[in-house]
Amino acid sequence: MNHGLPELSATERTRLRRMREKGRTDRSELYAVLGAAFVCHLGVVVDGAPMVVPTVYGFDEQNLYLHGSVASRSLLAAADDGVAACVTVTVVDGLVLARSVFEHAVNYRSAMIYGPMRPLTGPAAKLAALRCVSEHAAPGQWDYARRPNQRELAATSLLSLALTEASVKIRSGPPDDGDGPDAALGLWAGELPLAAVWQRPAPDPALRRAMPVPPHIARRAGTRVS
Amino acid sequence: MNHGLPELSATERTRLRRMREKGRTDRSELYAVLGAAFVCHLGVVVDGAPMVVPTVYGFDEQNLYLHGSVASRSLLAAADDGVAACVTVTVVDGLVLARSVFEHAVNYRSAMIYGPMRPLTGPAAKLAALRCVSEHAAPGQWDYARRPNQRELAATSLLSLALTEASVKIRSGPPDDGDGPDAALGLWAGELPLAAVWQRPAPDPALRRAMPVPPHIARRAGTRVS
Repeated sequence: MNHGLPELSATERTRLRRMREKGRTDRSELYAVLGAAFVCHLGVVVDGAPMVVPTVYGFDEQNLYLHGSVASRSLLAAADDGVAACVTVTVVDGLVLARSVFEHAVNYRSAMIYGPMRPLTGPAAKLAALRCVSEHAAPGQWDYARRPNQRELAATSLLSLALTEASVKIRSGPPDDGDGPDAALGLWAGELPLAAVWQRPAPDPALRRAMPVPPHIARRAGTRVS
Repeated sequence: MNHGLPELSATERTRLRRMREKGRTDRSELYAVLGAAFVCHLGVVVDGAPMVVPTVYGFDEQNLYLHGSVASRSLLAAADDGVAACVTVTVVDGLVLARSVFEHAVNYRSAMIYGPMRPLTGPAAKLAALRCVSEHAAPGQWDYARRPNQRELAATSLLSLALTEASVKIRSGPPDDGDGPDAALGLWAGELPLAAVWQRPAPDPALRRAMPVPPHIARRAGTRVS
């Protein structure tokens, strides 16, 4: 991807510590992981202790945008230079069932982004970020549903985090003990893959009349998130 | 569930802040959320900044047990009285597609557990915790695969966190704007459910002969994680 941004950083805290997993340094790998999920886990420090909350996000080439309602306490403590945050996005792809318990693992794709998180303030910036988050989680709804009015936008908190200090880790494939002494045990080994699959849309019982599911929603049924 | 433990705590940091979501105070709800996933997000503070890492877990009535290899840095800093941790388990159940962008939401089940996290030391405690984690993520493998030997157990780090200070939040059901003014817009609204489904097991290409998938693995295919 030609994005004009540097490779992913390798700071002390993003350096890989486990060797069986593969770290990725291409920025396109970061975008790929971020594109494969829509809920992240946001970590902040509150009164010296960690707090981890799930929230929806969107992203562009430069920034991650978060719906910030869950982070109100951290926001309250926000200084002008931002709140230290770690956002982690994880896609679980399956279980790695090895010959030994010790070699069992999880196949996954994960991105961690560190940095100062800032609340967005101006209405234009907030609207753009909200659109980004909305279209990432629920593509097509920005044009289909009623867009936020001024009051709603004012009541919505949005956060941004630069995609500057980030790491991507991916594990895929079979167990690692296929060529070791345990292979002689003659046990079955392999992967039990896992997929997050959109199900059939469930109409709101409050709908006043029967109506077809809009195509931009209906066509997601049966497809995978990632 | 008759577990002899108190209701979930309502400390300042576990008190619910958003009203549309429902907080649960029954301890059995905590066990239900923990039972519906096998990867959690562990938050710790490293050099004053948050770090959030995904890892597998297991639990019993009293404690959560984590595979600690991902937390090596925090472990290095561990004092005898434990490391402040926040473990969050999130199951995403679907998108809530409302008539207005503002009322869009995610249906989810989430548990947050706060407390000092301690590395397990004695071999017996480590083995029991590892069995708990292993059987939670990959049921049946403890008896099927080769169990850890002394060297492997020594090389495995396991952490425990008491299920004392915890909160559970759940959102389910249709959008909230079915009886508001936006209902007159005549737009489709509802839920797009999401399910994590185990796929067909993929044998390790290194298997020396064709062999059937053991029943305890094969029967998971097509079933939901949660």
